[in-house]
Amino acid sequence: MKTVGIVGLGVMGASFAMRAKELGYRVLGMDIDPKTIDYALNHGMVDGASTDARLLLEDCDFVILALYPTKIKGWLEQFQSYIRPGTLLLEISGVKSKLTGPIHEILRDDIELLSIHPMCGRESRGIEFGDAKIFDQANFIIIPVEGNSIDSVVFTSVFAKELGCKNVSVLQVEEHDRMIGFLSQLTHVLAVCLMNTHENSHLVEYTGDSFRDLTRIAKINEDMWSELFLLNKDILLDEIDQFIASIENFKSVLINEDTDEMKHLFVQSTERRKKFDK
Amino acid sequence: MKTVGIVGLGVMGASFAMRAKELGYRVLGMDIDPKTIDYALNHGMVDGASTDARLLLEDCDFVILALYPTKIKGWLEQFQSYIRPGTLLLEISGVKSKLTGPIHEILRDDIELLSIHPMCGRESRGIEFGDAKIFDQANFIIIPVEGNSIDSVVFTSVFAKELGCKNVSVLQVEEHDRMIGFLSQLTHVLAVCLMNTHENSHLVEYTGDSFRDLTRIAKINEDMWSELFLLNKDILLDEIDQFIASIENFKSVLINEDTDEMKHLFVQSTERRKKFDK
Repeated sequence: MKTVGIVGLGVMGASFAMRAKELGYRVLGMDIDPKTIDYALNHGMVDGASTDARLLLEDCDFVILALYPTKIKGWLEQFQSYIRPGTLLLEISGVKSKLTGPIHEILRDDIELLSIHPMCGRESRGIEFGDAKIFDQANFIIIPVEGNSIDSVVFTSVFAKELGCKNVSVLQVEEHDRMIGFLSQLTHVLAVCLMNTHENSHLVEYTGDSFRDLTRIAKINEDMWSELFLLNKDILLDEIDQFIASIENFKSVLINEDTDEMKHLFVQSTERRKKFDK
Repeated sequence: MKTVGIVGLGVMGASFAMRAKELGYRVLGMDIDPKTIDYALNHGMVDGASTDARLLLEDCDFVILALYPTKIKGWLEQFQSYIRPGTLLLEISGVKSKLTGPIHEILRDDIELLSIHPMCGRESRGIEFGDAKIFDQANFIIIPVEGNSIDSVVFTSVFAKELGCKNVSVLQVEEHDRMIGFLSQLTHVLAVCLMNTHENSHLVEYTGDSFRDLTRIAKINEDMWSELFLLNKDILLDEIDQFIASIENFKSVLINEDTDEMKHLFVQSTERRKKFDK
């Protein structure tokens, strides 16, 4: 039986723990919040858990770091001396390029850190929103850098399929952050900015599903997403500018009542969107 | 048993027909497309149907006009002489102010037209996407104008609840079109413009549910929505401008790395969005 350590039992860490338990792994949970540790133990999400990672790391065959991105480096500085040589660490942050360089610099030579990005989650934060099912049919991306081993990439690919993910893909760091800048970050910016366009609570009783679906992700963890946006600032700004150009173009078409061009834009968006149907 | 006539058996007309049948109404369908009439008859969506409205209108206790907005006036000019005096007509167009004035001008004095807007639908067009369930828990708006009777508003409210709708509200024409400009039209503009920001088909295997949910309505009926946008042009342009101001503000916050203000914007969007949870 393999033992997986999970550092950080927020919504993602808890979801990893729950699915790993279902799969028969021995799961050890670590979190700085004693209440979270109690919750994990009381709900059978873990086989063991502690606020003191030093007590558990020696037992782990591999470790998932489900921390806020900016907390990873400090955690490693404090605890990596307790990790067994040869252990694989998986970090799941939403952006990579500005984040992982400094981490690799301080990482022990006999530990391997591999970046992954399971494309799933929940709008809510905290262990109580953990859900093993978030991995079902999700896309899973591995973002290896120089120094990562083929063995680790293969092991992680197999683990991703065990978790229930559909596509497992490999991307370069820059490709990943560009993709995330568009698919995830720009998408969240639009939902947030739509809710913030003007006061709208008087409209609740009139709304349909379109508005609800489009703004679901306007419920956003402000601590994590402000970190992620700043870590991917240049790419996200470029994506925002491209979007503004797109909506300014649409605005001109509407001002000019250019029905043919408007229909062309609708047909294009329809064709493109069809490819994304599950 | 009441007989309801449904003019136009697209996705909305067909859905009305199917739910009305479930409720025990006698349903008569009218459509210019013989294939659509055959489909409705073969699938038991209607008790009778014809491409020739003249044959059926005399039998109808009330009539739902589920036509493209710009087709309503022409249809009435052609067929209103066949409608029984005192019949209530319900029209379901997505915008009202520029549309219904000219219609009321040509309408026979002994027929009443009441504007409604069931806040539900499907991205796909055509009778085969009709679905009685779209009305379940939907919001339903009645938009009376001078000349509409209290009796008709009450009858329609009861009918809306029979259909399965949750909230039935009454709005003035201008309130309705402003609300639609934000909740529905701006929302569709954002989804369309996001898909049109740049080519993105290479991103399919990496996407998560956020992007899928936000862009679902980028699959759009280009004929109907171009009509609806032009009929509500001034309001929609104003909403687009307010959104652009919102995203430009967000962009400045990101450029300045103003984390506190960014978190404030996220907290605001989260609080506002929570009110829209079903």
